[in-house]
Amino acid sequence: MYQLLKQEGEARRGEFKTVHGTVQTPVFMNVGTAAAIKGAVSALDLKDIGCQVELSNTYHLHLRPGDTIIKQMGGLHKFMNWDRPILTDSGGFQIFSLAKLRKIQEEGVTFASHIDGRRIFMGPEQSMQIQSNLGSTIAMAFDECVENPSTHSYVERSAAMTVRWLERCKKEMARLNSLPDTVNPNQLLFGINQGGIYEDIRVEHMKQITDMNLDGYAIGGLAVGETHEEMYRIIEAVMPYMPKEKPRYLMGVGTPGNILNAVARGVDFFDCVMPARNARHASIYTKNGIMHLMNKKYETDDRPIDEQCNCPTCRNFSRAYIRHLFKAKEMLAMRLCVMHNLYFYNELMADIRHHIEEGTFTKFYLEKAPLYDNHIQE
Amino acid sequence: MYQLLKQEGEARRGEFKTVHGTVQTPVFMNVGTAAAIKGAVSALDLKDIGCQVELSNTYHLHLRPGDTIIKQMGGLHKFMNWDRPILTDSGGFQIFSLAKLRKIQEEGVTFASHIDGRRIFMGPEQSMQIQSNLGSTIAMAFDECVENPSTHSYVERSAAMTVRWLERCKKEMARLNSLPDTVNPNQLLFGINQGGIYEDIRVEHMKQITDMNLDGYAIGGLAVGETHEEMYRIIEAVMPYMPKEKPRYLMGVGTPGNILNAVARGVDFFDCVMPARNARHASIYTKNGIMHLMNKKYETDDRPIDEQCNCPTCRNFSRAYIRHLFKAKEMLAMRLCVMHNLYFYNELMADIRHHIEEGTFTKFYLEKAPLYDNHIQE
Repeated sequence: MYQLLKQEGEARRGEFKTVHGTVQTPVFMNVGTAAAIKGAVSALDLKDIGCQVELSNTYHLHLRPGDTIIKQMGGLHKFMNWDRPILTDSGGFQIFSLAKLRKIQEEGVTFASHIDGRRIFMGPEQSMQIQSNLGSTIAMAFDECVENPSTHSYVERSAAMTVRWLERCKKEMARLNSLPDTVNPNQLLFGINQGGIYEDIRVEHMKQITDMNLDGYAIGGLAVGETHEEMYRIIEAVMPYMPKEKPRYLMGVGTPGNILNAVARGVDFFDCVMPARNARHASIYTKNGIMHLMNKKYETDDRPIDEQCNCPTCRNFSRAYIRHLFKAKEMLAMRLCVMHNLYFYNELMADIRHHIEEGTFTKFYLEKAPLYDNHIQE
Repeated sequence: MYQLLKQEGEARRGEFKTVHGTVQTPVFMNVGTAAAIKGAVSALDLKDIGCQVELSNTYHLHLRPGDTIIKQMGGLHKFMNWDRPILTDSGGFQIFSLAKLRKIQEEGVTFASHIDGRRIFMGPEQSMQIQSNLGSTIAMAFDECVENPSTHSYVERSAAMTVRWLERCKKEMARLNSLPDTVNPNQLLFGINQGGIYEDIRVEHMKQITDMNLDGYAIGGLAVGETHEEMYRIIEAVMPYMPKEKPRYLMGVGTPGNILNAVARGVDFFDCVMPARNARHASIYTKNGIMHLMNKKYETDDRPIDEQCNCPTCRNFSRAYIRHLFKAKEMLAMRLCVMHNLYFYNELMADIRHHIEEGTFTKFYLEKAPLYDNHIQE
């Protein structure tokens, strides 16, 4: 299903065909945690800002409204009115970052809901069942996200358990896909590489999971406090063991600089809450760097946020107006800036794809990456 | 500039020509207090939901971002990217409802900003200057909004002062419109009838202000605690003294039932924050009455809010989805419902216009008015 179209160094220009349409890679997935993009952005808006893949969170949707309700409504695509690919995470990351009173056992994890404290059990089978009810295009394996730092021996035991969990995920997903009333009988499953910052565990784990012939592979457990250099070192360490004929997804990453660096190392899929979260705090991406829209100097600036940007916000509204909306605590401020920042990320990926096609990606990457890593003030 | 096209009883179907386009009346103006519609709705969205006239608040825009800044940005139309008619209120109502430490004198009102406590003076001249800086299509006269109840003698003295203030407004607006750097040299001025619930004062005041040959006349100071019957009685009392060749505006009103009743008594213009405010609390207008979308029974209801509605929300999203968004505290819930409720009001006005043209308004009014006054549960 993944087809490599062009390669420049390690950077890959590809296509990933799914039942919900073909994804042009490298791609940035736009995060809609609870089946909506925070900042009053709908699935209709996602089409206007060039989103290819929407990402929703299994943990959140299981708690509210409940995955069985979404199944009853015809699945997540119909529920949120989005007909292109959706990736759902496994719930693992949220259990380890949001939920309380966790108890981890071979069978799975017992935890308390962050909403009402209710005790919930989730193991590989439950995660697959929930994602099957949601009917996403791509389901993610259920894994343990270890804290950083953790000891070598803890991470090693955890990685071994994650392999056993992955086997259970694969088996359960195959069973669910064959049920007569399943929402999406073609639901794909990506495995997730873990191993913390230990290269030896990462590599061994990657070898084990890629043996299972899944639909794609992710690098998980990064962007959780390690340095950018450690992150790039881990990517470089595991990349030789990732199949060339499968998509590669770096979970939860990152800044535009991180994305350029990871594409240069062979990654195809990305997701991150940062562009939308920054937008809601008036921190805006432009082709010249980061802009802080609350700055007094924009009070009477009638230019769009980014004069080179063709997003719905920049085509219609000025810096002065949007700054005013933030000051007046109008929700519209967040909406306009979330739309802009997501468009910026989606456009960045389009530029990356274009440059790989043209063989000019390395030049583009070396020129652009420092701009965004350093958060240069416009 | 107002042309009466058709009349059925007292109900009037008309057109009001302005430099920003022609308004089909009766019309409901959509309220964007601080140059944005609360609920993340932009001027672009207003076009999608059939809005003809946007209404912004002089008091709010004077405080933030400041009317001189908006003038510098080319006026309110350019600032918020709306090229159709805008009506600005005078600031009077907000001074009397939001501001603190008011001191009312013949010259004007001194008050403390509700944002930062700063002392501000506003009289007829200042209100006109602010509205001139905003460059709205229609400016409203600066008046005192008396509390209900107030004594006959207080209301009488207040009404007399409002006449003197109106003379000053007219003179100042004429001066401002003739200045070389004015934003909108064709800015119109509507006078406002006051007099509380005292018919004799209302009638006398209306006679005095209509002598001034302004561009339109409003009935102010209603929907502030009096009963619907008192409101309709006042409208009936003053209506014979309102010029037939000028538009008539009932300020801050109201429910769909109020609007139908007022159109039946000869009113042309309306505005109200209620449809958007109700929407933000999941209280939704449908052709069958009011719907409370948080009700458990909508949890798995895959129908649109109103199956007869053609708004962007009803064309794309289900009751179950929007209810989930409210539960998950997603801003998108508010946006979708504000869009729907404003569309509902704008469509109601289109229906009213159609029925007056067809001579079927009385039947329509008698059938529909009770439905909305009684907030019938769907």
